[in-house]
Amino acid sequence: MSGNVSTPGASVVSRVLAVLYAFDNGHRRLGVTDLARRADLPVPTVHRLLRELVAGEALTRDAEGRYAIGRRLWDVGMLAPEQTELQQVASPFLSDIHAATRATVHLAVRDGREVLYLDRLSGRASVPVVSRAGSRLPLHATGVGKVLLAHAPAELRDDYLAAELRRPTVHTIIHPERLRRQLAAVRREGYATTEDEMTLGACSIAVPILRRASADGVPEVAAALGIVVPTLKRERTRLLAALQVAARGIGRSLP
Amino acid sequence: MSGNVSTPGASVVSRVLAVLYAFDNGHRRLGVTDLARRADLPVPTVHRLLRELVAGEALTRDAEGRYAIGRRLWDVGMLAPEQTELQQVASPFLSDIHAATRATVHLAVRDGREVLYLDRLSGRASVPVVSRAGSRLPLHATGVGKVLLAHAPAELRDDYLAAELRRPTVHTIIHPERLRRQLAAVRREGYATTEDEMTLGACSIAVPILRRASADGVPEVAAALGIVVPTLKRERTRLLAALQVAARGIGRSLP
Repeated sequence: MSGNVSTPGASVVSRVLAVLYAFDNGHRRLGVTDLARRADLPVPTVHRLLRELVAGEALTRDAEGRYAIGRRLWDVGMLAPEQTELQQVASPFLSDIHAATRATVHLAVRDGREVLYLDRLSGRASVPVVSRAGSRLPLHATGVGKVLLAHAPAELRDDYLAAELRRPTVHTIIHPERLRRQLAAVRREGYATTEDEMTLGACSIAVPILRRASADGVPEVAAALGIVVPTLKRERTRLLAALQVAARGIGRSLP
Repeated sequence: MSGNVSTPGASVVSRVLAVLYAFDNGHRRLGVTDLARRADLPVPTVHRLLRELVAGEALTRDAEGRYAIGRRLWDVGMLAPEQTELQQVASPFLSDIHAATRATVHLAVRDGREVLYLDRLSGRASVPVVSRAGSRLPLHATGVGKVLLAHAPAELRDDYLAAELRRPTVHTIIHPERLRRQLAAVRREGYATTEDEMTLGACSIAVPILRRASADGVPEVAAALGIVVPTLKRERTRLLAALQVAARGIGRSLP
């Protein structure tokens, strides 16, 4: 990023971000050496930045000397309008769907070539899923992902289908033409499904959430709403109806 | 914070944090001048920091030139272990309580003199509440807050009761002795209630979530679990039972 060049101040900003971005789901607590390696910075530099970041309550330091993201950055993250405004509008609808079905309910957006989960509602009776709020999965292996890929710009879809596709299970559809036909069907029929394609024993059904574009009035796909169940047999119609009603409600409530 | 002194690098870190902390729930999108004023920094300095923070995808800049927290800081915030690990463990239990009651369900911790909401589940049929994940409310005016205040260190409780107490509604209990007696009852009976004390037309009931301390085995209050309903009449026993079962389940699942 441009933060790596020019003035000292600028490079300090980029170093601060490199330290923050060194944390991920698999690395929520890191020691100085790991942080320096993952941030690609000298240990003394990281030491000085960590002291400042802990003093500023952006990071915490535990008894074993490991650092983690602190409450004030959690607060700051919750203020991201793109993610949290949509999540807050959709939240009561997700609760209603979950209360009616007890299934896992997902709210997701496209983040480049991945599906980013903004929210997940899951009870103890729900089928286990790998996704959770903040996690990312391949677009082609999930119901919400297929919806978002089907409505992505054509060039992006072509690039996506041209690339090597991950195969989380033997049922994941990775043949480009078969996937392309399926995505066309998703646009035509207004919903996507998966069967054991991301996780064995988990099926999903998902619909787009449309936001009416202010200018020409052509609605744009703002997000995808999906549900994960052990099987779609017999359930499909009922679940689809619940999702469509909620998606319309969320779309109407979007700013 | 110490970031305001010593080396140039250090002070850049503190300036970066001052810019990030300039955003809050009421100010999710800010222009340069507002940011400079709220961060107490010169406009040119803020300009340079903003350029770097946008380049690093920490902030976004919209068409009107207003800045907001970006997706990568949202990602980073989701990694705060203190907040998200508890939230993730509790999430399925919250979903189950909501599915069973359709009421608003809260997961909260004490943050100094306030209750901090880590999660909230609320359907469209639920009674409207002011709280949402990330928001803070007075300890003495909410069910979860009373639980957390009742189990806070005695000195903190004394200081809290000695200070002037906010009164969101005419029903908020602000008389120190009356509140002290009520907190003693919360510890004795194992749950707290409110009636129109935070919001008119909203009653709440809440219980502590206990984490067994590794060392001496004395359980500590890790959080509070609460539910908001229009009225507690006739419901109290059923809701309390649901909360206690869930709180025990969460407590057992805590690391």
